[in-house]
Amino acid sequence: MKLAIYGYGNLGRGVECATAKAPDAELIGIFTRRDPASVKPHCDIPVYPAKDILSYRDSIDVLIICGGSATDLPGMTPALAKDFNVLDSFDTHASIPEHFARVDQAAEESGHIALISAGWDPGMFSLNRLYANAILPDGADYTFWGRGVSQGHSDAIRRIPGVKDARQYTVPVPEALARVRAGENPTLSVREKHTRECYVVLEEGADPAKIEREIKTMPHYFDEYDTTVNFISEEELLRDHRGIPHGGEVIRTGKTGWNGENSHVIEYSLKLDSNPEFTASVLVAFARAIYKMRARGVTGCKTVFDVAPADLSPLSPEELRKKLL
Amino acid sequence: MKLAIYGYGNLGRGVECATAKAPDAELIGIFTRRDPASVKPHCDIPVYPAKDILSYRDSIDVLIICGGSATDLPGMTPALAKDFNVLDSFDTHASIPEHFARVDQAAEESGHIALISAGWDPGMFSLNRLYANAILPDGADYTFWGRGVSQGHSDAIRRIPGVKDARQYTVPVPEALARVRAGENPTLSVREKHTRECYVVLEEGADPAKIEREIKTMPHYFDEYDTTVNFISEEELLRDHRGIPHGGEVIRTGKTGWNGENSHVIEYSLKLDSNPEFTASVLVAFARAIYKMRARGVTGCKTVFDVAPADLSPLSPEELRKKLL
Repeated sequence: MKLAIYGYGNLGRGVECATAKAPDAELIGIFTRRDPASVKPHCDIPVYPAKDILSYRDSIDVLIICGGSATDLPGMTPALAKDFNVLDSFDTHASIPEHFARVDQAAEESGHIALISAGWDPGMFSLNRLYANAILPDGADYTFWGRGVSQGHSDAIRRIPGVKDARQYTVPVPEALARVRAGENPTLSVREKHTRECYVVLEEGADPAKIEREIKTMPHYFDEYDTTVNFISEEELLRDHRGIPHGGEVIRTGKTGWNGENSHVIEYSLKLDSNPEFTASVLVAFARAIYKMRARGVTGCKTVFDVAPADLSPLSPEELRKKLL
Repeated sequence: MKLAIYGYGNLGRGVECATAKAPDAELIGIFTRRDPASVKPHCDIPVYPAKDILSYRDSIDVLIICGGSATDLPGMTPALAKDFNVLDSFDTHASIPEHFARVDQAAEESGHIALISAGWDPGMFSLNRLYANAILPDGADYTFWGRGVSQGHSDAIRRIPGVKDARQYTVPVPEALARVRAGENPTLSVREKHTRECYVVLEEGADPAKIEREIKTMPHYFDEYDTTVNFISEEELLRDHRGIPHGGEVIRTGKTGWNGENSHVIEYSLKLDSNPEFTASVLVAFARAIYKMRARGVTGCKTVFDVAPADLSPLSPEELRKKLL
């Protein structure tokens, strides 16, 4: 299958690398809204201006759109679904139904297939919520994130005047995780589930007490959490907080038996050194799936819920049954 | 959907209970090879002789076959797939390709759908092996089982002359599990991954030293493991070892990045109070899926790899995207 990347940030770079590890994929080009001369892929892959993409309509099987959910994908994915089979990692959970409707219309009208919201949450975590709910209808769901870097929260701190750079870690509360794993079915507030750890580099002359207050009281981002703020030097930030690790757990606890006498715990856990490289690896697997589905005549917008797992693998159904079942 | 149970042991009883918790399923009957008068369902469900099942051809949407993998299912599932949409939990991993071929032929010829090897291993563990392999092609797989009761190993001990009853627990070695979770990618022998704990009730006059030696040296079952044998009274066995707990972990560790510089750990873990009730819950979810697939015209033998996750849920695609994605 011939893949192309639309947008070459951290995620696009991850897709380039994940494609190189896929035995059945070829990366035919990278499309960018920047000056193509300023974009340097790791391998010898051509870089084209985004505006020229329609000229490559017949040479791309699946276009992987690596834009941001806030401003890029809501417009990009439906527009590109008119001419390409597309895949994105749209992750604004509350807006998924609306995004789905727009992409579905564009893909159905033009006879393409699209898959939105691939990655790990939404994505692998969603799949595990669905499987566990289908198996244990009488139960409760818990999702924990971290320990890992939240780009959104790091960006929110960086926007405060006087902040030069920042990194924010989302951290699950160990006691909450232990209670859930023990099958206690606790009701947990936002504050009881996660804490937030901030590492902040100040501009010269900035007031640390004022900035710490601004962070801790920031609505939606920090006000509902126990937040710690650490001021560090730019050298420390670059040395100790370079990576983009993340991960988390999806846990469902449920009961079976006529009197609910038997308890079960289903847990899916990820520990990721690189959030964008893992997300990119998920994207490439789902690109393979929609390529196969399109070849069988499927059109319209899909999500991870609509993909039979066998379609994600380069192995044949016979090999899968023999080796992995 | 109208379900029926074929075989009413621990698993069949679990299916009866799981069906009662499914909002969209009705259990129309239980079929048994025993005298129907001797079978007492928990609810007011009719019990029929297995030999009469063809008379109920038109009133069963999916027949859940609750037989054993060693002698029942290899014959039963292909035979019943000629007249019914069927589902089984065939778990002899090495014989799956052969079982699949027989069931597929019967189902295709008669225009039915069948799904084999549903449960947790094979089943949910297989799915997690597949997803993790598709995402991280450069990695290693580990499956740990337990702590839980192995019926096969318990039966093997019970067949030794002088043994009145027995329960065998499979136990993962904590150090091995810790090394895998830390991403060390260790090569582990059979002995290094699991130990076996046996609780044995002797017949009067039996020789404990001889029986302990027979257990520990039993080929395939115990000779490759570190095994401990505890002799207990029948009262202790009935009091402390009544349950059928099980569980385990499927872990894949893999690398991304141009130099494999980033490590990732994907772990799926189950802690089950009742192995048969959990397996039954998985079966009922997959019964729903094949019912929906058959309604769309799908025929032939399938496995968990061929089922789009959305088909497992009683929720609509819209609800799933809104609530679980």
